[in-house]
Amino acid sequence: MIVDCAIYEDGRRRDGHVDLAHAYDERHESGKFVWIGLYQPTEEEFDSLRREFKLHPLAVEDAIHAHQRPKLEVYEGMLFIVLKTARYVDPTEVIELGELLVFLGDDFVITVRHGEASSLAPVREDLERDPKHLRRGPGAVLHAILDRVVDDYQPAIEGLETDIDEVEEELFSDARTNPVERIYRLQREVLGFRKATAPLVEPVARLAEGKYGHIHPEIHDYFRDVNDHLIRARDQLDAMRDLLAGSLQANLAQVGVRQNEDMRRISAWVAIIAVPTAIAGIYGMNFKHMPELKWGIGYPGALMLMLVICTILYYRFKRAGWL
Amino acid sequence: MIVDCAIYEDGRRRDGHVDLAHAYDERHESGKFVWIGLYQPTEEEFDSLRREFKLHPLAVEDAIHAHQRPKLEVYEGMLFIVLKTARYVDPTEVIELGELLVFLGDDFVITVRHGEASSLAPVREDLERDPKHLRRGPGAVLHAILDRVVDDYQPAIEGLETDIDEVEEELFSDARTNPVERIYRLQREVLGFRKATAPLVEPVARLAEGKYGHIHPEIHDYFRDVNDHLIRARDQLDAMRDLLAGSLQANLAQVGVRQNEDMRRISAWVAIIAVPTAIAGIYGMNFKHMPELKWGIGYPGALMLMLVICTILYYRFKRAGWL
Amino acid sequence: MIVDCAIYEDGRRRDGHVDLAHAYDERHESGKFVWIGLYQPTEEEFDSLRREFKLHPLAVEDAIHAHQRPKLEVYEGMLFIVLKTARYVDPTEVIELGELLVFLGDDFVITVRHGEASSLAPVREDLERDPKHLRRGPGAVLHAILDRVVDDYQPAIEGLETDIDEVEEELFSDARTNPVERIYRLQREVLGFRKATAPLVEPVARLAEGKYGHIHPEIHDYFRDVNDHLIRARDQLDAMRDLLAGSLQANLAQVGVRQNEDMRRISAWVAIIAVPTAIAGIYGMNFKHMPELKWGIGYPGALMLMLVICTILYYRFKRAGWL
Amino acid sequence: MIVDCAIYEDGRRRDGHVDLAHAYDERHESGKFVWIGLYQPTEEEFDSLRREFKLHPLAVEDAIHAHQRPKLEVYEGMLFIVLKTARYVDPTEVIELGELLVFLGDDFVITVRHGEASSLAPVREDLERDPKHLRRGPGAVLHAILDRVVDDYQPAIEGLETDIDEVEEELFSDARTNPVERIYRLQREVLGFRKATAPLVEPVARLAEGKYGHIHPEIHDYFRDVNDHLIRARDQLDAMRDLLAGSLQANLAQVGVRQNEDMRRISAWVAIIAVPTAIAGIYGMNFKHMPELKWGIGYPGALMLMLVICTILYYRFKRAGWL
Amino acid sequence: MIVDCAIYEDGRRRDGHVDLAHAYDERHESGKFVWIGLYQPTEEEFDSLRREFKLHPLAVEDAIHAHQRPKLEVYEGMLFIVLKTARYVDPTEVIELGELLVFLGDDFVITVRHGEASSLAPVREDLERDPKHLRRGPGAVLHAILDRVVDDYQPAIEGLETDIDEVEEELFSDARTNPVERIYRLQREVLGFRKATAPLVEPVARLAEGKYGHIHPEIHDYFRDVNDHLIRARDQLDAMRDLLAGSLQANLAQVGVRQNEDMRRISAWVAIIAVPTAIAGIYGMNFKHMPELKWGIGYPGALMLMLVICTILYYRFKRAGWL
Repeated sequence: MIVDCAIYEDGRRRDGHVDLAHAYDERHESGKFVWIGLYQPTEEEFDSLRREFKLHPLAVEDAIHAHQRPKLEVYEGMLFIVLKTARYVDPTEVIELGELLVFLGDDFVITVRHGEASSLAPVREDLERDPKHLRRGPGAVLHAILDRVVDDYQPAIEGLETDIDEVEEELFSDARTNPVERIYRLQREVLGFRKATAPLVEPVARLAEGKYGHIHPEIHDYFRDVNDHLIRARDQLDAMRDLLAGSLQANLAQVGVRQNEDMRRISAWVAIIAVPTAIAGIYGMNFKHMPELKWGIGYPGALMLMLVICTILYYRFKRAGWL
Repeated sequence: MIVDCAIYEDGRRRDGHVDLAHAYDERHESGKFVWIGLYQPTEEEFDSLRREFKLHPLAVEDAIHAHQRPKLEVYEGMLFIVLKTARYVDPTEVIELGELLVFLGDDFVITVRHGEASSLAPVREDLERDPKHLRRGPGAVLHAILDRVVDDYQPAIEGLETDIDEVEEELFSDARTNPVERIYRLQREVLGFRKATAPLVEPVARLAEGKYGHIHPEIHDYFRDVNDHLIRARDQLDAMRDLLAGSLQANLAQVGVRQNEDMRRISAWVAIIAVPTAIAGIYGMNFKHMPELKWGIGYPGALMLMLVICTILYYRFKRAGWL
Repeated sequence: MIVDCAIYEDGRRRDGHVDLAHAYDERHESGKFVWIGLYQPTEEEFDSLRREFKLHPLAVEDAIHAHQRPKLEVYEGMLFIVLKTARYVDPTEVIELGELLVFLGDDFVITVRHGEASSLAPVREDLERDPKHLRRGPGAVLHAILDRVVDDYQPAIEGLETDIDEVEEELFSDARTNPVERIYRLQREVLGFRKATAPLVEPVARLAEGKYGHIHPEIHDYFRDVNDHLIRARDQLDAMRDLLAGSLQANLAQVGVRQNEDMRRISAWVAIIAVPTAIAGIYGMNFKHMPELKWGIGYPGALMLMLVICTILYYRFKRAGWL
Repeated sequence: MIVDCAIYEDGRRRDGHVDLAHAYDERHESGKFVWIGLYQPTEEEFDSLRREFKLHPLAVEDAIHAHQRPKLEVYEGMLFIVLKTARYVDPTEVIELGELLVFLGDDFVITVRHGEASSLAPVREDLERDPKHLRRGPGAVLHAILDRVVDDYQPAIEGLETDIDEVEEELFSDARTNPVERIYRLQREVLGFRKATAPLVEPVARLAEGKYGHIHPEIHDYFRDVNDHLIRARDQLDAMRDLLAGSLQANLAQVGVRQNEDMRRISAWVAIIAVPTAIAGIYGMNFKHMPELKWGIGYPGALMLMLVICTILYYRFKRAGWL
Repeated sequence: MIVDCAIYEDGRRRDGHVDLAHAYDERHESGKFVWIGLYQPTEEEFDSLRREFKLHPLAVEDAIHAHQRPKLEVYEGMLFIVLKTARYVDPTEVIELGELLVFLGDDFVITVRHGEASSLAPVREDLERDPKHLRRGPGAVLHAILDRVVDDYQPAIEGLETDIDEVEEELFSDARTNPVERIYRLQREVLGFRKATAPLVEPVARLAEGKYGHIHPEIHDYFRDVNDHLIRARDQLDAMRDLLAGSLQANLAQVGVRQNEDMRRISAWVAIIAVPTAIAGIYGMNFKHMPELKWGIGYPGALMLMLVICTILYYRFKRAGWL
């Protein structure tokens, strides 16, 4: 599905609706470029673009079927970039990944969205309000998209960080819940998220160094800024991975400590109940000559003895921290 | 065993049966190349090939005895590539690895299959239906084989992923089964699979960069595509390895938690049975003056007391989550 | 907020108050440079500086909003350095990180502090007492700041080391406390601290090699000294991370060992109480012909028997280390 | 001890016994080289060689005292190579390492064996049967030795693999043995073996690339083959290390699971025995009015009740998998 | 404190006492160099040296305050090397580290010892007995010192290895001691020792490659020998670190296994004592019609029954390995 198609001239969008054929004609004129946005295009929808822009069949296949690793590839006359977008979904504590593919030439940008990747309409609007940046050509569009995608990693990372904080609190609280499944699932999300972002660091660094053509030299520093945020995101994810590994270990110790506490509490009660049973057993013996049995205070005395011993035991266990 | 032997001219297969001697003669003619396919050849079967194509004795030894690591070697006048094929066998949850060895010169391709490596017949058929690609010479054959082998890694990886999903579900279910052996065996498969794929990344990257001769320049981008899939496979295997290591850790915690739950449940029942035993012991004492013993409601009262205490304990333990 | 603004000429500070406009004029004169210090400036406060020194908008954004990774960036005509300052807060055992950003040109230094970063006034005073160093220009200022910041890492590291020593002592003491939460929190601090220091090693090494302009050649060796301390700090943090990981493991073993000790102690007491109960049970049987029951010493004998067996058990358990 | 000393001319061994002085004279003649083999030589035995071949004193020290890491060093006019040989000793499951040191010049090879390193006599015999290879000079001898040493790693690795398979079987069997010591000792062997082989990969790779003199160019491919086997050995050892680490983890879970199983079985029996004790306690109470006590079927009924409850409990525990 | 000051000429020490001023004068003469040895010098003691040899203030600061990482730094006209010496202290199982700092110019060596670093007097004596080596100038002194320091690592490493062997034996013995603290402390020593040696590998490798001036070319091979020993020490420490990590893991399993053994032994005794208690309970019931109670052999029969059942249980538990 073609979402938007526009011609930009000197940093300004040409008014009115523009169809593809029109865009193909005008883009060659100096100072102009086209930006065509698609959403999950079919092979047929993509065919005209493929022929006009001489897109490489392998890149076209990637653009239609998605499920690629983040990457930047150089083809004759164009760059091809694959990005992963990320969105944190709170109730399930899951990072939803989308995919964004960008073809970039001297006078065109083609953007293809897949899955949960959020609309590029706001990026386009922001850019159109900044003609100075837009005048730098398709590279400015690539920067704006990358900037937005990488900035959107931050709320997702913060969502995970909140979860990790909660897990930590749970871990060291007295609640005695078992956060192991949650930790494991968070580890899984962090691993998946990292895989979606880390491979991008190297190509963006090369963009910042101006290793590729098609991009206006003034934008290089901007890509360095994007890369900075990207590296920060990767480092945060690495730190989370380490923290989660540590919390899994800490949880093992907590489980062991609680087992110990329970065992001691249980044992204390067993001891408290075992003593009257033993005393009762003694006074249940059938010896002829057991003087206590005939005493008037024998029975209440025995009960009292049980009570006293149980009470002493109770307080001693209490003081020792077993109860 | 020679499986197939064919001469290709301008991207088309010469009709009719072709014997080796015939193939040796014609391959030198411009625009032609031969593709000879073998299955577990003996030294004798391989001898004529060895002499005709001046194959290096070390490469020949590898081709006959197999059990090599994946690798790409440059010999004078040819490339020698060793690949591992993978097939997931469901009932046993095992990755069956086969071996595929390719000799590649300017006018010949020799493919040798060992073990479970699947037949190359479909690859050949697909290629023969694409004369444009085939016209690029032996490099196109190598690409087609690599593409197929690496694509076939994906179902094997998905088989493992399904197993891991099952293990996860088992791990956090209430089933109280012990998935540790399954996790261990999966780790073993993942390690073995990774060892069969990862060493290939570097040589395929060099193929994509056009570092080797014998390969038509138009095919370089295709090798980059193969390498992309290869890196994706390797990354997936790495992620699985991390997940399995995490699940082994999580399992430890689960075992500890279950031990704790069982101990608490058992202890609760011990407490419930200990109380009537203690009361019975008390009324089994032989004191002369135990007024309750003479009461008419003494006995039913004692039973009632036992019942009441047991019931109270039962509900308290229930509420505390011990039962 | 502008904290201080001074003109330095031949290593000496110009007397009297200097306003910004004044500083802008004079800095171009040979042998002079300005050092402007700010604390959490607003965009408005920073505007005049941005225009005068032609600061890059991205660096300005970083300087105003902070929360950057440590880094060194080269812009046209200047260097931009981001540092993390660290302070150990004892009662909470936390490392408080501040941020310090430095713009460095041939004739100016702009320093921006954020958060807990300690005041640079003492650095300035020390420098002003060393005109020989100061005469080397803005690079000397950068060195003095880096030197101070990195030296201040040491007390923070020592604070953590003291905590780790305490944790170790706790771990192997008989106190039976559970240091797992403390270990985990220390790991978290160490990870965070390392993230704030390690990325600085590489750019400071490049400063020491004289890879960047704007810095007097005589200062290069000084940066090597700073880097030495930085690497030492990083190595110490790495060693702490390894030690904490080891102590988490050791703690697991300690928990297991204590569980075992408790179980044995409890079991010993259960055994000691079970024996009199069993003996009492035997003499509570109602057989007609039980000669002991009629003996005069039957009852005291039975009690004595209980006592003797319990005492024997007690000493045997004692000797076996169970009690 | 000098084990063998021979002159080779055009790939053939000169007949008859050759003494050292003789060998020293003839080696300078074109197409000839000498191969002197020693076993744990003393300083005195080595002295004549040291002077004749101008061996570097540090290399001589290494050759006499052994206990070196595997390495390849270039001295003026010669290469010096240290190898570790490996032999698997079954009953103790230990890898016995020997040491082999080779001096290699344009017209001489000196081999020194230490400890368990197996005799080089078979290598010499095989080589003497292959004059074509031998004609390539001392490099061919080095290749033949390396080839044999590295090939001999394989049975040692297979011995360890068999042990690991046994450990795995033991681990997941019902035998309830504790393989932890065996796993630990295997880890130790694998670590030691790896340390003896891995450092060799890099110098052999450089031999294969023809980076060193003294070696006939036709042999380079042969060293690549040796390196292939060496890398395979290293990868196998790495995989074993990972598997053993995994099996240690799996063992922990197994220990926990068995602890749980035992605790449940024990608890089930405790429950079964506690019920008759409680019932007996009830009918042992001394209440005046306990009608059951006077019933004729009171006693057999009580026994029956105990039996029925125990039987029910037994089957319920059986069904729940506790017994 | 100045420990020794000597002038060497053509590999021989000038007789008689030499004071600093004297040494300063003569060192410039061809073929001579001075070696000044200090122990924990004060700033004042060092001042004359600093001025005479134009030592860099940063290096001087390091030399006086010590506590540096091992390193090699190039200053104008000299090298500055920091070494850590190691000594194993048996009763406490601790590695005592000292520090040794060397300034090396074309005609001087200054050595500064700190803390536990052992005296260099024996190194000096050995060197003075080898004029051939000493004639090579200050580089020979550096080599002799490095050689001694690195050789002295070996007994320290062996001390740790003995400890590790003891820990292993303890771990798998039946002694049931808890070696976890010892393992942890050994880990700590190994980590600290490694940190004191590993950073030296790279600079010594560069010394061996002759990357620095001031050193006679004939000594390069000698530094390669030192580096070999250094790498061996580092590899041994790495192996120890891995072994200790493994033994911590193995210990966890041992703790679990012993917990299980104890629990089974305890449970067996509980079962053995529970049976007579239950039987006694049954014959303690007050039913009117319990024929056994009137039998003459009732009581001895009951006791016999208890004994028989306990004996059977005892042997069954024995056979099952629970007792």
